[in-house]
Amino acid sequence: MPEMFQVLPPANALKLIYDHLSQNIRTEELATAESLDRVLIERLTATSSLPSFPRSTMDGYAVRAADTFGASESLPAYLSVIGEVAMGQESRLSINTAQAAIIYTGAMIPPGADAVVMIERTQKLDDTSIEVLRAVAPGENILNIGEDVKSGDVLFEAGHRLRPQDIGGLMALGITRVKVAAKPRVAIISTGDEVISPEMTPGPGQIRDVNTYAIASLVTRSGGIPLPQGIIRDDYEALASAARTGLDAADILVISAGSSVSTRDLSAKVLNSLGQPGVLVHGVSVKPGKPTILGVCNGKPVVGLPGNPASAMVIAGLFLVPFIRKIQGIVRAPAVQRVTAKLSYNIASVPGREDYVQVRLTERDDELWADPVFGKSNLIYSLVKSDGMIRVPLNSSGIHKGELVEVELF
Amino acid sequence: MPEMFQVLPPANALKLIYDHLSQNIRTEELATAESLDRVLIERLTATSSLPSFPRSTMDGYAVRAADTFGASESLPAYLSVIGEVAMGQESRLSINTAQAAIIYTGAMIPPGADAVVMIERTQKLDDTSIEVLRAVAPGENILNIGEDVKSGDVLFEAGHRLRPQDIGGLMALGITRVKVAAKPRVAIISTGDEVISPEMTPGPGQIRDVNTYAIASLVTRSGGIPLPQGIIRDDYEALASAARTGLDAADILVISAGSSVSTRDLSAKVLNSLGQPGVLVHGVSVKPGKPTILGVCNGKPVVGLPGNPASAMVIAGLFLVPFIRKIQGIVRAPAVQRVTAKLSYNIASVPGREDYVQVRLTERDDELWADPVFGKSNLIYSLVKSDGMIRVPLNSSGIHKGELVEVELF
Repeated sequence: MPEMFQVLPPANALKLIYDHLSQNIRTEELATAESLDRVLIERLTATSSLPSFPRSTMDGYAVRAADTFGASESLPAYLSVIGEVAMGQESRLSINTAQAAIIYTGAMIPPGADAVVMIERTQKLDDTSIEVLRAVAPGENILNIGEDVKSGDVLFEAGHRLRPQDIGGLMALGITRVKVAAKPRVAIISTGDEVISPEMTPGPGQIRDVNTYAIASLVTRSGGIPLPQGIIRDDYEALASAARTGLDAADILVISAGSSVSTRDLSAKVLNSLGQPGVLVHGVSVKPGKPTILGVCNGKPVVGLPGNPASAMVIAGLFLVPFIRKIQGIVRAPAVQRVTAKLSYNIASVPGREDYVQVRLTERDDELWADPVFGKSNLIYSLVKSDGMIRVPLNSSGIHKGELVEVELF
Repeated sequence: MPEMFQVLPPANALKLIYDHLSQNIRTEELATAESLDRVLIERLTATSSLPSFPRSTMDGYAVRAADTFGASESLPAYLSVIGEVAMGQESRLSINTAQAAIIYTGAMIPPGADAVVMIERTQKLDDTSIEVLRAVAPGENILNIGEDVKSGDVLFEAGHRLRPQDIGGLMALGITRVKVAAKPRVAIISTGDEVISPEMTPGPGQIRDVNTYAIASLVTRSGGIPLPQGIIRDDYEALASAARTGLDAADILVISAGSSVSTRDLSAKVLNSLGQPGVLVHGVSVKPGKPTILGVCNGKPVVGLPGNPASAMVIAGLFLVPFIRKIQGIVRAPAVQRVTAKLSYNIASVPGREDYVQVRLTERDDELWADPVFGKSNLIYSLVKSDGMIRVPLNSSGIHKGELVEVELF
């Protein structure tokens, strides 16, 4: 597959990479209690029905509904109370005509009963008799077997990411272990002869490594495991060796390139050496972040990020995060955190390019405003000062002051 | 402080609890690289300026801007190239009149130069001379000292939760350790004589524990540490002892009560025994979830959740999650994940109560629709089948079919 030097829109670039990825999902088996935010690799069906017995949904009396027909405040039905239904066991009581048993929410309906009268709709006469002040229909205030979920029902399709309530739902059915996609491991290499470890004090011309840590944190937040590979100097052999080691240990390789043309070319050359088909996208129609390199080596996604921190974060959000989801087989991507706000300045753009503009959110006159944070993409603190980004679509020439915009929150 | 038996709107209930919480934040010091989503307990200021030296933002030539004044394609400026600025070190070159040096993005501007000409605006004549085809202004294509952040600038206020780009920003300044709030520990007790461990097979009338696991997962997702305390039977001494142990080991105590009135009363009695002021809220104007108990014991929030899984999740989202944020000192709550959709059925409500209606999102006719998932709050799978919830405000009598609604995503 030859390298493509055309600049691609983000959606096309994503699709091109997806088309070349390995279809194998690395899997593991986990305790369900530990599987929050993990992705199921197989369809799960209900192994039994929920509830597994008819349950009361109210505190009151288990009765035969027919015994209450026509009952009202002026003409109550008289029932004799034969006992109390114990929680958590089969009732030893059986309800016959004109009988009732005290029952609490969640208890099993005793044999003979077909409805529950709320305690508020009764009047106690003495220890063994009550008046029922309103009729109940058969089945009233009862949760029937299988009303929540029926044995054999599909619970989740493969590719579903487990949320807190899903964990609860699986536990309710006794599904205490699940097969899920392994967390994607993302090897991160930082390059640049000027880049030093944050622990060190920079000399003239030197800067501390930012991208390793910002990208690693984004990987963690997106459900992956970052594997930082350290800072590698701008040298083909050194970078190729580190890249090979990183790709072998990981499911995705990210090189945070230097920002000059020569270091970008170096990244592309190194990525092409790692396996087929190699670099597939050399430039995307995104601002900031045009000089992005994307490819696939031996079925694994590889990413050459622009060196500027703001560009690197935008591009990582647009491509790396979707890759992390894709290789776990996630079917429905989680919605981006988003708020609607009014734009406080005109933003110009160029059709044929997606622009990402950082904004800070402020409340003024009871309205939420998105104030653009202007700054070169070399700045890290313009990103820090922002609450989110506005996307100016591919074919827009800009957005006017006062228009409502959707802000994707960081 | 006497118990209050009035049913409170959620906002008032939250405020009442906040007013009684301890002001002490439990803290720890962490490697910045490990501090994603953690909350700063002190204001941080920049210890140095970024960048710490003037940097080129382009690949090109470092020049004296005055030497390019008036330059154009038809009348270029001729400059002699005296060498290349090395990355990551102070330049040994010094630029004099009519001189230029090759420079790459991110390199330090050499002495004498005050601008950078992009390589695309030059023409190479031979190894030591170029033509400049367009003038540059002083400072052009240069990032100045402190342009990103100035020494002494406030970076973050106390109470800020660290995002990926914030981690990068701290590393850029060599701030490699931070003081943050400790992760809140949440003790979770499940009660009910009918409740058994999910590992076991329920007999007649028994159900598996759902709430411990759903709530624990929600705690994890919200940045807390769940401490499940097991299933305790509906007995004052047993529950009081477990509650005391849980509260001692944790920062917040949650009792997932049985759903009957008697077990709720038991929870309230137990919570009142743990410390002052005890239960402050006995019922909230929320559906589902009205029979909620909230209090403070010795400065720590305590929560009595309704036993029904759907109610428990709504209430945990409304109160437990804010408590987890509050005791870390978080200033700005993260925005809820939200999408806008069209409602597909009328929803009736009662003024004076916040209703939470579960919905499933579907795409029809290129529009996003919110389809209400009707189901009793006893059901766990109605929650599983939902993508999020619509909030019907306190004083609304409902929402009409076809109206746009904000869906808070799970």
